[in-house]
Amino acid sequence: MPIITLTTDFGLKDHFVGTIKGTIHKELRDAVIVDISHQVNPFHIQECAYLLKNAYKAFPEGTIHIVGVDSERTPETTHLAVKVDGHYFVTADNGVISLIVEEVRPEKVVEISLPGTVQDAFPVLSVFVPAACHLARGGTPEVIGKPFGKLRHYKEFAPRVTNDGDTIVGSVIYIDNYGNVVTNIQRSLFDAYRKGRSFTLEARNQKLTAIHDRYSGFINFDLDRAQRRGPGDLLALFNSSGYVELAIYKSNLNTVGGAATLLGLDYRDTVFINFQ
Amino acid sequence: MPIITLTTDFGLKDHFVGTIKGTIHKELRDAVIVDISHQVNPFHIQECAYLLKNAYKAFPEGTIHIVGVDSERTPETTHLAVKVDGHYFVTADNGVISLIVEEVRPEKVVEISLPGTVQDAFPVLSVFVPAACHLARGGTPEVIGKPFGKLRHYKEFAPRVTNDGDTIVGSVIYIDNYGNVVTNIQRSLFDAYRKGRSFTLEARNQKLTAIHDRYSGFINFDLDRAQRRGPGDLLALFNSSGYVELAIYKSNLNTVGGAATLLGLDYRDTVFINFQ
Amino acid sequence: MPIITLTTDFGLKDHFVGTIKGTIHKELRDAVIVDISHQVNPFHIQECAYLLKNAYKAFPEGTIHIVGVDSERTPETTHLAVKVDGHYFVTADNGVISLIVEEVRPEKVVEISLPGTVQDAFPVLSVFVPAACHLARGGTPEVIGKPFGKLRHYKEFAPRVTNDGDTIVGSVIYIDNYGNVVTNIQRSLFDAYRKGRSFTLEARNQKLTAIHDRYSGFINFDLDRAQRRGPGDLLALFNSSGYVELAIYKSNLNTVGGAATLLGLDYRDTVFINFQ
Repeated sequence: MPIITLTTDFGLKDHFVGTIKGTIHKELRDAVIVDISHQVNPFHIQECAYLLKNAYKAFPEGTIHIVGVDSERTPETTHLAVKVDGHYFVTADNGVISLIVEEVRPEKVVEISLPGTVQDAFPVLSVFVPAACHLARGGTPEVIGKPFGKLRHYKEFAPRVTNDGDTIVGSVIYIDNYGNVVTNIQRSLFDAYRKGRSFTLEARNQKLTAIHDRYSGFINFDLDRAQRRGPGDLLALFNSSGYVELAIYKSNLNTVGGAATLLGLDYRDTVFINFQ
Repeated sequence: MPIITLTTDFGLKDHFVGTIKGTIHKELRDAVIVDISHQVNPFHIQECAYLLKNAYKAFPEGTIHIVGVDSERTPETTHLAVKVDGHYFVTADNGVISLIVEEVRPEKVVEISLPGTVQDAFPVLSVFVPAACHLARGGTPEVIGKPFGKLRHYKEFAPRVTNDGDTIVGSVIYIDNYGNVVTNIQRSLFDAYRKGRSFTLEARNQKLTAIHDRYSGFINFDLDRAQRRGPGDLLALFNSSGYVELAIYKSNLNTVGGAATLLGLDYRDTVFINFQ
Repeated sequence: MPIITLTTDFGLKDHFVGTIKGTIHKELRDAVIVDISHQVNPFHIQECAYLLKNAYKAFPEGTIHIVGVDSERTPETTHLAVKVDGHYFVTADNGVISLIVEEVRPEKVVEISLPGTVQDAFPVLSVFVPAACHLARGGTPEVIGKPFGKLRHYKEFAPRVTNDGDTIVGSVIYIDNYGNVVTNIQRSLFDAYRKGRSFTLEARNQKLTAIHDRYSGFINFDLDRAQRRGPGDLLALFNSSGYVELAIYKSNLNTVGGAATLLGLDYRDTVFINFQ
């Protein structure tokens, strides 16, 4: 039986997540349910998409991802089951799919229409869970809805390339648990424009001239410990999702702070890469 | 094998929850364990009951709910296994059962007395887990304790109906992850006294004249977007548990705040419904 | 199949934990994965060890514990699979093992060397997960690495016994979800030096003359409720891990505060036991 994942802005204190899991287990005793996050910023579709985009491919094909952010059905936003890139997403048509799978064309999109379902204040429970359980039992999307054509499309802020290819202007798309700052500049874009040139990465008043492959990559282990760079120092790296990230080495938000606070960078702020 | 759920005030950082799960899996390799909440306000029986009351029925009959809040055995508070409404609860006799299943009469109550158990500082581990595992293996409550009669009874603040049925005086029983304010006024009470009349819901200096069925229910989608009510506006609704709830549409505690902070309402504060 | 546990400083908001679980389930569909904690203070090896030390024995022998704190491989810190006390740990050689199993000698230590593995910014995913899955399938450590001899050794601050055995000088090693203060003084040490004497436990300007076996142990239930000690009062006890702990009875960090804040005690601060 496929795995069911949950990504919501419900938090972990309220009874919502437990209620959802109980209901799934009532239908499918042996369901494997995996939390991706319940701490999405409330109603923050972009953040929800960032987390799901970086997590969903880790799961086996056929996994069913319940997206519990901004999920109420309105005259303008319907409920969907989407098959794309081998995975199922059960979600409101709030644009999140277009942000998760930017370049992949959905194989199948149906507007969920379950007999006997009431539109209430907890559609993840009353609509998404039965839809997900249907899919988990091997049911086809066609049984729970009719084909839907006009999937809402949002475009994440894309980096701009300016100065005849000499500058990439990126922006901050996420700040992680360590306060590290993730930008929307992907390694592939960087590589395409670098052409062997040296470069300066500028974020606020900081300038960096290297982007490493891991956090410790900026340390010269041939030097004595006292002369090396280390905890508390700033670096840039391509993170595990392939994005340029600004990090404080071994940062701790409870003590020294993270890159976001130290650089004064927030969601949507701008970062520059200038090639020389 | 029945599901075992956990509702505690242990938080998620400490080793307590992991230790409990490891111990359960050591006894029952394939146990399905579901977290309801580990972020109950410490020793807050009412809050614990609110969360469990709204979650337990989602689980299959026979589910075993471990209640890890205020769980120490004292000369005045014993340890119980309770069967009620088709579910098992393993808990201290601290009144929580009476708040969870207000009107349902327990089918069976035993005072837990396990041979070889030490009364230590972690009774959820040393007493509740073995009791729950016994029940999960299909054991009867009688084997782990003797019948217990005088279940401690607490009464949640009930709404009062005054003014010859023209006014309902309710109070705040929970504030959720979005800062939404849940009152103890249930739809059934409201319906019983409304008798087709119009009404005013008063909370602090705010007055509302409608209670919707879902969050987007207060939006007139026939209007232009600029003229509609929307994010940041206050509404009342019957939430998914049937209670009157005050909400800020698409509230975000990290940015605009929620209904609780904006209205200045806290746990136990009063809300009025006046029928005209 | 053995259980896999996770102890990390990833937090619960980011996609890291979900990604790890998805990847494990992709390899081992029916894996049982248990979170011990994802809220270790970032890079805080001692705190990570405290949590794991108190949790790992609850799990069945053969359980595989992934330690996702300070996990990057550097020229000075390699990746290890360690079998010790009947359990497996997959971790960087950052000293955490010596803090978890202080006195137990590892049965087997291998330096992980998996073909095709890239050293990137997310070694828990790229190295620890495949190593753990290999062990979970029953594979031997020898297949994923070669024997490793010089396990890094850290020593946790140990209590000192001074004054010809009349004084134990301990220090704070953890502050829990309730604000309770855990010291490094174990019951066995206390018992060895007490020799039937009375004593004073001093923490800042507070003096206590008893150490109880559970939280309610300091209450004299023969007294009237008004005359008893109770919520808000300070006590010392041997906690469920056998350490001397300072606690505020029924403390709540959201309201009255916990022992740590009320006593002004923080990690590494000193506590004295003087025998008379």
